[in-house]
Amino acid sequence: MSVSPGTTLARLREQKPLVHQITNYVVMNETANATLALGALPVMAHAREEVEEMVGLAGALVINIGTLSPHWVDAMLAAGRAANAESIPVVVDPVGAGATRYRTETAKRLLDEVDVTVLRGNAGEVATLVGLEAEVRGVESMGVGGDPAELAQAAARTLGVVASVTGPVDHVSDGETTFGVANGHELLGTVSGTGCMSTAITGCFLAANENALEAAAEALAAFGVAGEDAAEGAHGPGSFHVALYDALYNLDPSSLDRRAQVAQSDNVG
Amino acid sequence: MSVSPGTTLARLREQKPLVHQITNYVVMNETANATLALGALPVMAHAREEVEEMVGLAGALVINIGTLSPHWVDAMLAAGRAANAESIPVVVDPVGAGATRYRTETAKRLLDEVDVTVLRGNAGEVATLVGLEAEVRGVESMGVGGDPAELAQAAARTLGVVASVTGPVDHVSDGETTFGVANGHELLGTVSGTGCMSTAITGCFLAANENALEAAAEALAAFGVAGEDAAEGAHGPGSFHVALYDALYNLDPSSLDRRAQVAQSDNVG
Amino acid sequence: MSVSPGTTLARLREQKPLVHQITNYVVMNETANATLALGALPVMAHAREEVEEMVGLAGALVINIGTLSPHWVDAMLAAGRAANAESIPVVVDPVGAGATRYRTETAKRLLDEVDVTVLRGNAGEVATLVGLEAEVRGVESMGVGGDPAELAQAAARTLGVVASVTGPVDHVSDGETTFGVANGHELLGTVSGTGCMSTAITGCFLAANENALEAAAEALAAFGVAGEDAAEGAHGPGSFHVALYDALYNLDPSSLDRRAQVAQSDNVG
Repeated sequence: MSVSPGTTLARLREQKPLVHQITNYVVMNETANATLALGALPVMAHAREEVEEMVGLAGALVINIGTLSPHWVDAMLAAGRAANAESIPVVVDPVGAGATRYRTETAKRLLDEVDVTVLRGNAGEVATLVGLEAEVRGVESMGVGGDPAELAQAAARTLGVVASVTGPVDHVSDGETTFGVANGHELLGTVSGTGCMSTAITGCFLAANENALEAAAEALAAFGVAGEDAAEGAHGPGSFHVALYDALYNLDPSSLDRRAQVAQSDNVG
Repeated sequence: MSVSPGTTLARLREQKPLVHQITNYVVMNETANATLALGALPVMAHAREEVEEMVGLAGALVINIGTLSPHWVDAMLAAGRAANAESIPVVVDPVGAGATRYRTETAKRLLDEVDVTVLRGNAGEVATLVGLEAEVRGVESMGVGGDPAELAQAAARTLGVVASVTGPVDHVSDGETTFGVANGHELLGTVSGTGCMSTAITGCFLAANENALEAAAEALAAFGVAGEDAAEGAHGPGSFHVALYDALYNLDPSSLDRRAQVAQSDNVG
Repeated sequence: MSVSPGTTLARLREQKPLVHQITNYVVMNETANATLALGALPVMAHAREEVEEMVGLAGALVINIGTLSPHWVDAMLAAGRAANAESIPVVVDPVGAGATRYRTETAKRLLDEVDVTVLRGNAGEVATLVGLEAEVRGVESMGVGGDPAELAQAAARTLGVVASVTGPVDHVSDGETTFGVANGHELLGTVSGTGCMSTAITGCFLAANENALEAAAEALAAFGVAGEDAAEGAHGPGSFHVALYDALYNLDPSSLDRRAQVAQSDNVG
């Protein structure tokens, strides 16, 4: 087990994997641009008529339930099953699970019917899916009780995924090994869709590193470092948002491992 | 009656109300980011399966018809009725009413079937809904005859709403009292979606001030001041757009009332 | 035949034509803002209920298949036929043709059922539609064999359109005359949707110049010059993207013809 965001980023930029994203209307441009700035190729496609064919071309599939409707759910399930059939990794972002029954049930359906590689959400969303008490207001986690590292481990074990729980410190777990990722900046919370970007970037790293636990932790470290770079000289969410794409584009693989603040937790459960 | 955008903004930032937005594809990211930068929490949800539940969590509902289709209209009506049932304020932006029958009829249907708190549109859109002559090209008002303060008052009386008519000077009326708001900057007209942003921000202020006339005027004053701040140092629509989020984030409640150019009109009708 | 982007741009800014766009979710905000920054008026409308009425108000119709679904295809066809009936020029962007059957077939259906004025795509997409070998990964052309000027000429002849094939050098042909346009900057490839923007801007120029071959070449020259301006001082895709809107807004008609690098090819076929 070796977490090396720099090594994976260098490989990603060389391979330029296609990352198929079925995501929400709010952030489509943002996640496409984050993917492209990082060095991978985004493609957005949501029609039942083409998702299975499109995902077959991709190195990873990103499913994000931020603005749901029934046709989209059908396409997400179809794409997820097609990805599974071809062993293409799948990352799911259960945006707003816990806020409405429709979101919670759709997220559970995806976890039931698709072999999800990585579940990337905030503490409230993930706790909801594990069956714990959580308060989710819209798409914001209002906090859950308990330790987030334990939550990540419990989610991984209960749901059979790599759980990637983002927050002030992120926690990524496969149920056995849990990493804490301490990179990032508070301005990330002032821009809509930065959580969704971290999911898209997780998809990019999954396409370039077969070890899903490593890839998920590496993605959050890389995105967090880009957030740190973007915060320098930012005057608020607008200038920070712009600088974030520049920072992803300018991420330096050779210094990334040194800057990544990734620590392995003791087995917490 | 006291218009104090600073007081309401300070309250909004403390309460962080959830603002449910059913809006158009063009501006979803923009209105979400404007909401977040101001200090409230945006949530976008449009599925018939969840809008009634989602709006129940919200402090205000924003309905914007900028990119319509039948399923969305159904969801707007359902969400509007659910908001009414729980006394949650509703702001409607009739984007492009007057340009096509479908938009005009949908806007009228919303006004008929939902108890709309604030109608926020440009002069052409609002005049269309009042039954006056107006020229609307796409989503741009090409001007209407007559005085915009009178238009706002007539719209408020005829439609039973607080009418918020934006233009070089904005006019907000409940049919009795009419405020002129002279803040803003011409660069606002060079960025797509700034009208929609002003509607979203009206929703934010409605969630923090029960007096809808005050809230609507305060929102436009606050947004206009942010536009003035953003224009400083902008080189065109791109840099202005970015600076607008920074300016919303950095709006200072303690100086906002002094900077707001809000004047009460004499009863004009 | 005289290609003069400056003359057409000056006319466009005077006339402010409405440009109706049925485009993809990823770039709607981007193409609306590019249209507005250039000096035209964008309107996005995709409902079967209104597209025919809306396009009748417009100076040009832009159809972009970047995020397809059946209802949208129906609306694209209806709008295209309505545009034809009123002799309104139509530009089609076959995003991702060649990547999935659904995209290839939809692009072909548009070309069959609508009288398309300009087809604006990358080499892989256009080659696919001409029936040549091409590799398209998602929405990126991975290159085709052969000369791009010949491809543009062949597409124009085979498909009965003005073919506008963008790449390191762009080639625009009506089957007889072929122009190479050498403006642009490599940072354009790092921002999602710049190809879609060039299509939208082609629509703007079509609304201001009846000669479609000229208009298509002028649009790419103008957009390329804006890209060159935006690259100055950019630190990556984020700051470049922002500067691109400023540059479109600040394009100077009086110097544009001098800066345009447009060369007529010899008849290549």
